[in-house]
Amino acid sequence: MDNSRREFALIERFFRHRGPVRRDVRIHAGDDAAVLAPPPQSHIAVTTDTMVAGVHFDHHLSPHAIGHKLVTVNMSDLAAMGAEPAWASLALTLPEYDETWLEGFTEGLFAALDFFNCALVGGDITRGPMTLTITAQGLLPNDRALTRSGAQPGDTIFVSGTLGDAALALALQHDPTAFNANDTQRDALEKRLFYPTARVMLGTLIRNQASSAIDLSDGLGGDLTHILSASKVGARIHLDALPASAALDALVQGEARWKLQLFGGDDYELCFTVPQSRLGVFETMSKHAGVAVSPIGVIEKEPGLRFEAKKKQVEFTASSYSHF
Amino acid sequence: MDNSRREFALIERFFRHRGPVRRDVRIHAGDDAAVLAPPPQSHIAVTTDTMVAGVHFDHHLSPHAIGHKLVTVNMSDLAAMGAEPAWASLALTLPEYDETWLEGFTEGLFAALDFFNCALVGGDITRGPMTLTITAQGLLPNDRALTRSGAQPGDTIFVSGTLGDAALALALQHDPTAFNANDTQRDALEKRLFYPTARVMLGTLIRNQASSAIDLSDGLGGDLTHILSASKVGARIHLDALPASAALDALVQGEARWKLQLFGGDDYELCFTVPQSRLGVFETMSKHAGVAVSPIGVIEKEPGLRFEAKKKQVEFTASSYSHF
Repeated sequence: MDNSRREFALIERFFRHRGPVRRDVRIHAGDDAAVLAPPPQSHIAVTTDTMVAGVHFDHHLSPHAIGHKLVTVNMSDLAAMGAEPAWASLALTLPEYDETWLEGFTEGLFAALDFFNCALVGGDITRGPMTLTITAQGLLPNDRALTRSGAQPGDTIFVSGTLGDAALALALQHDPTAFNANDTQRDALEKRLFYPTARVMLGTLIRNQASSAIDLSDGLGGDLTHILSASKVGARIHLDALPASAALDALVQGEARWKLQLFGGDDYELCFTVPQSRLGVFETMSKHAGVAVSPIGVIEKEPGLRFEAKKKQVEFTASSYSHF
Repeated sequence: MDNSRREFALIERFFRHRGPVRRDVRIHAGDDAAVLAPPPQSHIAVTTDTMVAGVHFDHHLSPHAIGHKLVTVNMSDLAAMGAEPAWASLALTLPEYDETWLEGFTEGLFAALDFFNCALVGGDITRGPMTLTITAQGLLPNDRALTRSGAQPGDTIFVSGTLGDAALALALQHDPTAFNANDTQRDALEKRLFYPTARVMLGTLIRNQASSAIDLSDGLGGDLTHILSASKVGARIHLDALPASAALDALVQGEARWKLQLFGGDDYELCFTVPQSRLGVFETMSKHAGVAVSPIGVIEKEPGLRFEAKKKQVEFTASSYSHF
């Protein structure tokens, strides 16, 4: 860690004694390294996500929302492994010492860390173009991690929540007059873009039922393809079954809506597969997850991703896929 | 993790199947998170260090040296806790896809990771101004971490290796004609600046003898002060005992040399304290560490850091300390 006086003052003011207190953090940030005590019989899931100013966010995003999102995108990766968030390390590169920015950022950051009971155990603060990285760690029972590679033909494909809201909100950022959205709809959609969720509770609940899982950051089309490749299978998606929010449902229909839901990205929902034999237990369990889950298709032996609506095959042009 | 095609191609070419293979890495990079299996009865030390282009390094530093240094500064933090390196996560923000740079960088990165038996388990590659972060994790027996807070009056203060070489090399970068250094001396000093070591073996060996430890990144004067503050003690340093390399010894003497050794930084040696009662065992152990250790002073009850040479007190002006 960098030990400059400026960094010390900044840590003291904005980071010290904030965030959840966990008994498994034996030595806190402030020594050469933090020391963590994982529980017996546990494995550790570790993931890293970086957000760069001007690339991953722009002036539309408040520092509070940046702090929230930086935590949440990492928690979403842990959720997809079925892990419970435990510890986070933060690398913060900032062009200047901007108190207002830091206040908003750390408010959003710690609110999210508190929500997920994830302790900030260390990091590094440096000067430079704004770049934000969290490496987050989660706990799970030995060898119980959900992966992308376990899907089998016949498994039902589920997604949590609704898809396409963030993509529509982004389109409205670019063209505020599009889609004739009213203020209520606009607010609902922007909340999904700027304050995404991470389905941590669902991830831990499906750990014993799901055969594979991934979190949806780039859009269902691309992300599901990672499960299909890793599992060496194909899939058929029922487009009419893709879950949509009230706002999306009111504003966009048909192929335009499917494209937002399949290729838009930034949903931070979970996509996972459940074998027929475990569907009964899964349905009982999933009622406790605090989020709706929707069956949207089936895993098939034949490689590739196929779409249908009203029992008819639907093709998307190459340009729909272009960004993944 | 970011899932763009460009990132996949880059990972496939420069990162896949490189670095040490560890059996405790249950799921490798490529899923939503890596999964790690810590051994029973172990604690985990975790540290983060960022290097920003134009701030922490400039065009003098080859990509190979950047990769080496990024790993080594993190390993040095683990060494100071007495931890054995295990896993690293890399956040790489790059302005462009520069094959030559990536080849050199990953050569240096993986050579260092191999040396320390530290597996690269994941990360994120993004586009933006060059910013490099590693979060590294090391293992140690339960509650055996070396900290900054255990020094007691009467403890002997040791440092490993030699001090001041990197600081002199940096001065020679700014003014190549200074000090009349010959090529052999220049090479020896630059190696210490561009290819620092991390005293990992020493850190694990002194785990049961040392009462406190820190790694020397900002210079002995500032870094030892962290031990003194955390331990609520003071110290007396014998300036004539500060270990110097042959090159430094030949080129700079007296107060100028002490200043390089006390306030120069970038040494990446360990500074630690050993109680009188454990000095015997420590001296036997330290012979196996592969690096010389030198007693340089003593911990005292009275707060503050005092310097003496030939039994006379030496004062440094405030400007000597200015950068920490």
